[in-house]
Amino acid sequence: GVTEEDVHQIVNRALSRFSEDRIGLVDYALESSGASVLSTRCSETYETKTALLSLFGIPLWYQSQSPRVILQPDSNPGNCWAFRGSQGFAVVRLSSRIRPTAVSLEHIPRSLSPKGSIPSAPKDFAIYGHEEEAPREGTFLGQFTYDQDAEPIQTFWFQEEPLATYQIVELKILSNWGHPEYTCIYRFRVHGEPEE
Amino acid sequence: GVTEEDVHQIVNRALSRFSEDRIGLVDYALESSGASVLSTRCSETYETKTALLSLFGIPLWYQSQSPRVILQPDSNPGNCWAFRGSQGFAVVRLSSRIRPTAVSLEHIPRSLSPKGSIPSAPKDFAIYGHEEEAPREGTFLGQFTYDQDAEPIQTFWFQEEPLATYQIVELKILSNWGHPEYTCIYRFRVHGEPEE
Amino acid sequence: GVTEEDVHQIVNRALSRFSEDRIGLVDYALESSGASVLSTRCSETYETKTALLSLFGIPLWYQSQSPRVILQPDSNPGNCWAFRGSQGFAVVRLSSRIRPTAVSLEHIPRSLSPKGSIPSAPKDFAIYGHEEEAPREGTFLGQFTYDQDAEPIQTFWFQEEPLATYQIVELKILSNWGHPEYTCIYRFRVHGEPEE
Ligand SMILES: [K+]
Ligand SMILES: [K+]
Ligand SMILES: [K+]
Repeated sequence: GVTEEDVHQIVNRALSRFSEDRIGLVDYALESSGASVLSTRCSETYETKTALLSLFGIPLWYQSQSPRVILQPDSNPGNCWAFRGSQGFAVVRLSSRIRPTAVSLEHIPRSLSPKGSIPSAPKDFAIYGHEEEAPREGTFLGQFTYDQDAEPIQTFWFQEEPLATYQIVELKILSNWGHPEYTCIYRFRVHGEPEE
Repeated sequence: GVTEEDVHQIVNRALSRFSEDRIGLVDYALESSGASVLSTRCSETYETKTALLSLFGIPLWYQSQSPRVILQPDSNPGNCWAFRGSQGFAVVRLSSRIRPTAVSLEHIPRSLSPKGSIPSAPKDFAIYGHEEEAPREGTFLGQFTYDQDAEPIQTFWFQEEPLATYQIVELKILSNWGHPEYTCIYRFRVHGEPEE
Repeated sequence: GVTEEDVHQIVNRALSRFSEDRIGLVDYALESSGASVLSTRCSETYETKTALLSLFGIPLWYQSQSPRVILQPDSNPGNCWAFRGSQGFAVVRLSSRIRPTAVSLEHIPRSLSPKGSIPSAPKDFAIYGHEEEAPREGTFLGQFTYDQDAEPIQTFWFQEEPLATYQIVELKILSNWGHPEYTCIYRFRVHGEPEE
């Protein structure tokens, strides 16, 4: 059996990890650390009505639903980048040059979605590494599937660790979980080993 | 007795719930999802001195202590809407039309209040549903009491589930826990079932 | 042994404390409660490249890496005040006059730092209380060492509780954990008892 002391230790370790950006992995795509969105190629940002902030019925401004939000930690419902359709791109300049080993995608949990389903969540996606000089030709790093039935934050490790280092990484969404009009990205993180 | 595996499961479930906006209920009054404050009727926003942000002694601006903050998740001390006296109103346009089933009110915990007491917290309050065409005549949905000795986030379920659906809900604060000058609302949430 | 009920209780208590600004102590240096940075004396804010926010390669603005951020709760990587060298000052006007009993310093955990080390974290520091009329002459309240191997949030209690009350408190950083160019402060909190 476990003692009360054991329980306190398990709880404290879990809370420490929780406060390490939830997963305890450095995020080289974090805006506050210096990362930025370079391009979304042909993706068309979808202007949801929810973006309009108003006070006393007077519109204040359209909330920044720019792609930047995918590099920001706040993942309350609505704090996502929505693009039209089910295919979209985000080319991200990382905070430093790294050997990428994994990426994480995040969506809101089903429990916080009005109908208990998350059809606008991304499904299949691919990751590419880019050289600054030739941003159009990327190196394929991996393809994965975000699971709508699993935890909100999902981390995907590259099977073959790339030999090269990159400062530019592209997220290419290939499909979503069924929403006919748009796809929402709450947060995209890139993990890896810093260049020596 | 419980095994170590059991403890990990309990901890993980608790942390999952914690990260589901703490209570795991969709909040149709969340600003980032598209909700807004339509009116505060005759409520007079109370300009606390604490609202002034300054740097190097030079005032920068008065922090937005507008009623909008009650629809925003950040509940650090001071991030509340304060109105003069102990009676106030907030008419909220929800992010979508719903059959309301419950509301939640939030205040800071006693431990984060300078004297260990929270006299500016709301006490008795009533909830009304409104039709867009006739915003003055509301339908009474329920009356409740926020308990200053209970958890900071308290959820109140309507005894009789309303048959009608509403997109406009009014919070009417009837009394506070003793502060002679003002009452503070940190966050107001509305829960329910989305219209078919 | 412990029962399942015991485990739930321990977990719930830990999560309650976690949501009480992590440590359950009133922070009189919190900006949203009305505190502000009066001066940083001769400290030179260090413009890290990471401060530049850009979208599609176009610089938007330099992120407010002003000393104000040390009074704000968001401690994601990069949300810190960086000053040149290993010695710096921050003179803070508290949200109210108190008898100070402790201060807390916060840095990011090692796990969220690219190389697993935090050389830019503060090491030795001293705390002074000031009178509004004579801001240059302070009363020494205590000297402490932030431990780079301990928890990210560390609280330091004054050995002798000061008899006087202060509304102005100074943080004087004396050394860092080895970074040759700059030192980063993520958050500084001041705890105490409110004046009668
Ligand atoms: K986000
Ligand atoms: K709030
Ligand atoms: K901060």
